[in-house]
Amino acid sequence: MVKAKKFILSRHFVGFPQPGDLQLIEEELRPLKDGEFLAQALYLSVDPYMRKYANTIPLQSTMVGTQVAKIVDSKNDKFPVGKFVAAPFGWRTFTISNGEPAARGVPVLLLPDMGDLPLSLAIGVLGMPGNSAYFGFLEILHPQAGETIAISGAAGAVGSHVGQIAKIKGLKVIGIAGSDEKGRFLTKDLGFDHFINYKTEDISQTLQEIAPEGVDLYFDNVGGEVSDAVLTNMKDFGRVSACGSISGYNDAKPQGPLIQPTMVAKQLKMQGFQNVGWRHRWSESFEQNLEWIKEGKLKYKETVTEGFENMFNAFTEMLQGGNTGKAIVKV
Amino acid sequence: MVKAKKFILSRHFVGFPQPGDLQLIEEELRPLKDGEFLAQALYLSVDPYMRKYANTIPLQSTMVGTQVAKIVDSKNDKFPVGKFVAAPFGWRTFTISNGEPAARGVPVLLLPDMGDLPLSLAIGVLGMPGNSAYFGFLEILHPQAGETIAISGAAGAVGSHVGQIAKIKGLKVIGIAGSDEKGRFLTKDLGFDHFINYKTEDISQTLQEIAPEGVDLYFDNVGGEVSDAVLTNMKDFGRVSACGSISGYNDAKPQGPLIQPTMVAKQLKMQGFQNVGWRHRWSESFEQNLEWIKEGKLKYKETVTEGFENMFNAFTEMLQGGNTGKAIVKV
Repeated sequence: MVKAKKFILSRHFVGFPQPGDLQLIEEELRPLKDGEFLAQALYLSVDPYMRKYANTIPLQSTMVGTQVAKIVDSKNDKFPVGKFVAAPFGWRTFTISNGEPAARGVPVLLLPDMGDLPLSLAIGVLGMPGNSAYFGFLEILHPQAGETIAISGAAGAVGSHVGQIAKIKGLKVIGIAGSDEKGRFLTKDLGFDHFINYKTEDISQTLQEIAPEGVDLYFDNVGGEVSDAVLTNMKDFGRVSACGSISGYNDAKPQGPLIQPTMVAKQLKMQGFQNVGWRHRWSESFEQNLEWIKEGKLKYKETVTEGFENMFNAFTEMLQGGNTGKAIVKV
Repeated sequence: MVKAKKFILSRHFVGFPQPGDLQLIEEELRPLKDGEFLAQALYLSVDPYMRKYANTIPLQSTMVGTQVAKIVDSKNDKFPVGKFVAAPFGWRTFTISNGEPAARGVPVLLLPDMGDLPLSLAIGVLGMPGNSAYFGFLEILHPQAGETIAISGAAGAVGSHVGQIAKIKGLKVIGIAGSDEKGRFLTKDLGFDHFINYKTEDISQTLQEIAPEGVDLYFDNVGGEVSDAVLTNMKDFGRVSACGSISGYNDAKPQGPLIQPTMVAKQLKMQGFQNVGWRHRWSESFEQNLEWIKEGKLKYKETVTEGFENMFNAFTEMLQGGNTGKAIVKV
């Protein structure tokens, strides 16, 4: 009999997530039925969206999230023992699945051979954050070579990826994040043109210096004061891709600068998106991102926490900006 | 020698406009040069955008605004005596013009024969508000018959016009405004399907009752709490036309609910616009709006203040929602 560990939601988050909001329990799994397989988690993802999404699921549910898992038993020919999947199984060590999509239509992906690359990339640069970066940048913003883009949350999994695609596409890239160490990563390692430390610099003033004619595009992961400063420094008819708004995730009714006056004055266009909107095209982003990695054009960084028991700590660290690149937990 | 009265900006507005912010003075006009004409104001417009736009012009400038004026002297064959113009001359009784566009590229329009219709319509339903309604609704939202639209500031010049075009195009129309009298005007006189009084009703709750599947489109004149309530009741992939944000005009750094989380969660698209963006197509909206008026499909209402000296009062009344339909001043 296989025992699975899992985190269930005891309380919906109010303010910043507290340890007692989740509960780590064990359950005994039943035998497999025909068409099912058993997957053992190897790497689990912690992402900003979970803070908000968790409050939409019922209490006692398994905490939401994707993982890379190894198929260790199977009664489903399409998912044979020894293969790997990237799947929305949530925060749990073992999962019985029939391979069908889970909540939000997120599919269970059988991973192709990834050669020398770490399997964990399937929940990072080749997974959901990679899909968000690829489609949220290219399909929402329709970037043109020579344009200038500002990216908030620039050192995170999605932001650092967007900036690199922007460089591949010939844009001038300005990253905004919260430490000079992240800034060095962005400019030295990833080739961003500029970095602004929002904790120590006046974003608006710095933007006026490095992009005096305004920025064309803004890829927003944070919302709030940072976004207000960027919006007021955009060119007329600028385009904004709204990927997330981590600055407001821990407030029940987050308040911030009213952005509509700037939207009107500069005739801006803002579009919110979720990567699941393009799930029928995920193979395209997977393959393109993989090709860019192999060509050395797309770099990735992971902040790894060891131990399934430490999922909650990894999650809250990430919410506080403790990660550079993709935050993952290795079981 | 012609004496012109004009309001000049003594102080930029801080908070709600104060009487001392503007100064009513007289000036003697010089004789006309070749190519110029003299225009006498008949009707002047007071509009929400002026609150914000005034703070971008130099002190001692004439307060911004459009007017309908009669040509009373001319050394320009294109603008003969006896004809009328709609022009961005600002808050003044007499103006010397060469017919060239003024600030923001707003043209001086020689008015065609308007038959029995009042000339004041050229700064209302056939002027800038009419252009905002026509293009800001049709070109930004691309409405489809059968869709549901919510409109804030619905009893104002632009909002009441948008709702009527929406009815012409086969949409279900929900107007939001601040008095039941305005509500009766919208539903009884203009044919809106529903009205929500934001001062006495819970917008979110009422929207859930009258549009349980969510609204497709939102035409926003106000921003702030009202807009937050509408956005959270939109369908996924809803479209928002941001025309104005009067709720924040009187604050130096207006704060309000953070809208980005909703933009992302519902994958909404929001676009800010200014009618001057379509100034090369204003004849199209003029003619179409005129045709709808003649067909009885487009009704208009004016809130008229008598006397040029009362411009400031008319302006602040309008900012407080005292008008239904277009607020104008008759000289």
